[in-house]
Amino acid sequence: MIEYKLFFDTDGLEGSVKKAFERVVKEREEGITGYYELPFTSLNLLENIPSYPHIKKIALIGIGGSSLGTKAIYELLKHQIHHKEIIFLENPDPIDLEEKFSKIKKRDTLFFVISKSGTTIETISIFKAVIKQFDLSLSKDNIIFITNPSSPLEKLGKENSIPIYHIPSNVGGRFSVLSAVGVVPLAIAGFDVKSILLGAKNLIEDFFNQKALHILQKAAFYHKIYPQVKTNVLFSYSSMLVDFNRWYEQLIGESLGKRKGEERVGITPIAHIGSIDQHSFLQLLIDGPLDKTVTFLKIKKFHNYLKIPPLSLNYLEKTDFVNNHTFNELINKECDATLESVKKQGVAVDLIEIGSMKPKNIGELILYYQLLTSSLGALFEIDTYNQPGVELGKRILKTKFPS
Amino acid sequence: MIEYKLFFDTDGLEGSVKKAFERVVKEREEGITGYYELPFTSLNLLENIPSYPHIKKIALIGIGGSSLGTKAIYELLKHQIHHKEIIFLENPDPIDLEEKFSKIKKRDTLFFVISKSGTTIETISIFKAVIKQFDLSLSKDNIIFITNPSSPLEKLGKENSIPIYHIPSNVGGRFSVLSAVGVVPLAIAGFDVKSILLGAKNLIEDFFNQKALHILQKAAFYHKIYPQVKTNVLFSYSSMLVDFNRWYEQLIGESLGKRKGEERVGITPIAHIGSIDQHSFLQLLIDGPLDKTVTFLKIKKFHNYLKIPPLSLNYLEKTDFVNNHTFNELINKECDATLESVKKQGVAVDLIEIGSMKPKNIGELILYYQLLTSSLGALFEIDTYNQPGVELGKRILKTKFPS
Repeated sequence: MIEYKLFFDTDGLEGSVKKAFERVVKEREEGITGYYELPFTSLNLLENIPSYPHIKKIALIGIGGSSLGTKAIYELLKHQIHHKEIIFLENPDPIDLEEKFSKIKKRDTLFFVISKSGTTIETISIFKAVIKQFDLSLSKDNIIFITNPSSPLEKLGKENSIPIYHIPSNVGGRFSVLSAVGVVPLAIAGFDVKSILLGAKNLIEDFFNQKALHILQKAAFYHKIYPQVKTNVLFSYSSMLVDFNRWYEQLIGESLGKRKGEERVGITPIAHIGSIDQHSFLQLLIDGPLDKTVTFLKIKKFHNYLKIPPLSLNYLEKTDFVNNHTFNELINKECDATLESVKKQGVAVDLIEIGSMKPKNIGELILYYQLLTSSLGALFEIDTYNQPGVELGKRILKTKFPS
Repeated sequence: MIEYKLFFDTDGLEGSVKKAFERVVKEREEGITGYYELPFTSLNLLENIPSYPHIKKIALIGIGGSSLGTKAIYELLKHQIHHKEIIFLENPDPIDLEEKFSKIKKRDTLFFVISKSGTTIETISIFKAVIKQFDLSLSKDNIIFITNPSSPLEKLGKENSIPIYHIPSNVGGRFSVLSAVGVVPLAIAGFDVKSILLGAKNLIEDFFNQKALHILQKAAFYHKIYPQVKTNVLFSYSSMLVDFNRWYEQLIGESLGKRKGEERVGITPIAHIGSIDQHSFLQLLIDGPLDKTVTFLKIKKFHNYLKIPPLSLNYLEKTDFVNNHTFNELINKECDATLESVKKQGVAVDLIEIGSMKPKNIGELILYYQLLTSSLGALFEIDTYNQPGVELGKRILKTKFPS
């Protein structure tokens, strides 16, 4: 269970709420984006994923939308169950790559190559380096491709009988984690993907049955206070949420930063980790310009009972007020106290309280942010699902390697 | 060697450059902040740090300014030499703590407790949990404290003959990495701290001899375009720079987010990693609002020659233009191409090109950002070195634990 609390006034937003809802319904009906269907279609997909009993590790080659969501879920769940380790080969940083290569043995590793277009330069270059490093032959035994139907990568896969899973063509990378992109590697690694999908499915159903009004209200409010306030800070209270934060930044930044005719619109996402960044970013939120909304994300129950022991150290007695409490309580009360202190400045804050880090809740959390993003895009009247701006850099890159 | 390239017009900024320089000189003369002296005083400190031959690991208990800078340096240098592992116990997240506890053995670990005030609630709570977990006795054999002179933690240390190193009272946490805070653990771990300090010292001398004008020019330009542009994005092209990014965010956010009478000022720092975040944040920079400056940070030479092998895969021939090039080249040309594509939008960009990740260059990079921060604070006429805004949350936190 997740509770959502908005600490700002949602009166007078009915018109925007209605407008956003109608456009999202239209998007779904017209298939403009297909992510709404993934929790349903992926439940079927899940039934047909073979098991790989001889496999101990997964090496996932992919960048951006092909890895961020999977990594976010992996980092949230990996502490809870026995699973196959996933090594993410994302960045074309040679030192990072060699460090990760040293952890891989060909014999017991399953290699995923994930690229929607099938030609992502970082991904294919890393794949080539992997082929050389591990003397990997293109065979069905230990390679899986995930790509768009009829991409060049699919053609290569078919030619070599490599198993291929598809990303639906109307689902962009940042909306794809509940497609084969995340479902196949996470299921093979041993995670309870079914519960993740069910959690997502429940929220989809609630949203389209108008039972998740708070999402539309939050979008309508952010739209109302734009452009005076065009930055959203996500303050996540657990070190496990570092990669979720990265996923959130991609989702919001890449979906909502768009041209609308001559106009440039965008919500700037910034994500931090509590309580660490109370010692970093908080000062700016309290005394700096009031140009940000802040969302606090908290896990009520951590599956861990580590306590601050009842030790009273000489001269440090003023720290004893937390003695005998769990770290779970400490980090959450830090969240509550920080929320209050930020709210007192007149900042629009909201709170997402996750009951515990169960797969079902993770599925819901993912859909929550995707639906929020779609609702915002609807109100800004932009194309939430494309990314035309990244093409220029790709074209310039080619000119840097003269043939 | 580091090269700094400003791709914006610095004409007409002479007045601001002069003003910033004069105030920074005054701050140094009056001892308003003491970080300018650290590269000199820490060279002496370094001579008197005992070696700990029986120690294999360091557990560093500290949060915010007490750990971020040390972690940034550690992550940049750890691949290059044999060293003692440092485990950072920062966040009061119970799952993160227990995972890290499992890597620690009391017998061969040196525990640092680092807190400027000596009473940081997270740090002391984690210290108490460590005492219980490892049945640690307060003794000089495997504990070191680093704190303000005459803090409660110093008193506890003296009572138990624990070695104590001081943070100068006029050096705040985020400016303290070249004080004992970073110097002592990094030196004991086996890193070449002397070269780091010499790199920092050189830049200090250049700056005060007016030979690092580009720092003042960048500050003057950012001040000129404020408040239309009040966000700086740091795009760092290496996975090794993740923790440097965090340090940068604290330095800029906490130093420059301040009240000035009734007015609220602040530069919002956002840090990303290339090329990963080209697939995430770049779209917003290209098509979103022109309210950000962007700094690109790049390492020219990675100490690694991993290549993209000359493999041509069927259907993927269009990716072959990078074949036979190193990943070092690929990631850097991605940086160049992205810089160009962002610059074309009219965004003020600059480039920091680090020759290689040598200790000397790291020292310079740290001082570069600290001097930039001081120069900006001078122009905004704020107190760059305090953090009054974080106290409210601390007071509220106490009320959440009724006694």
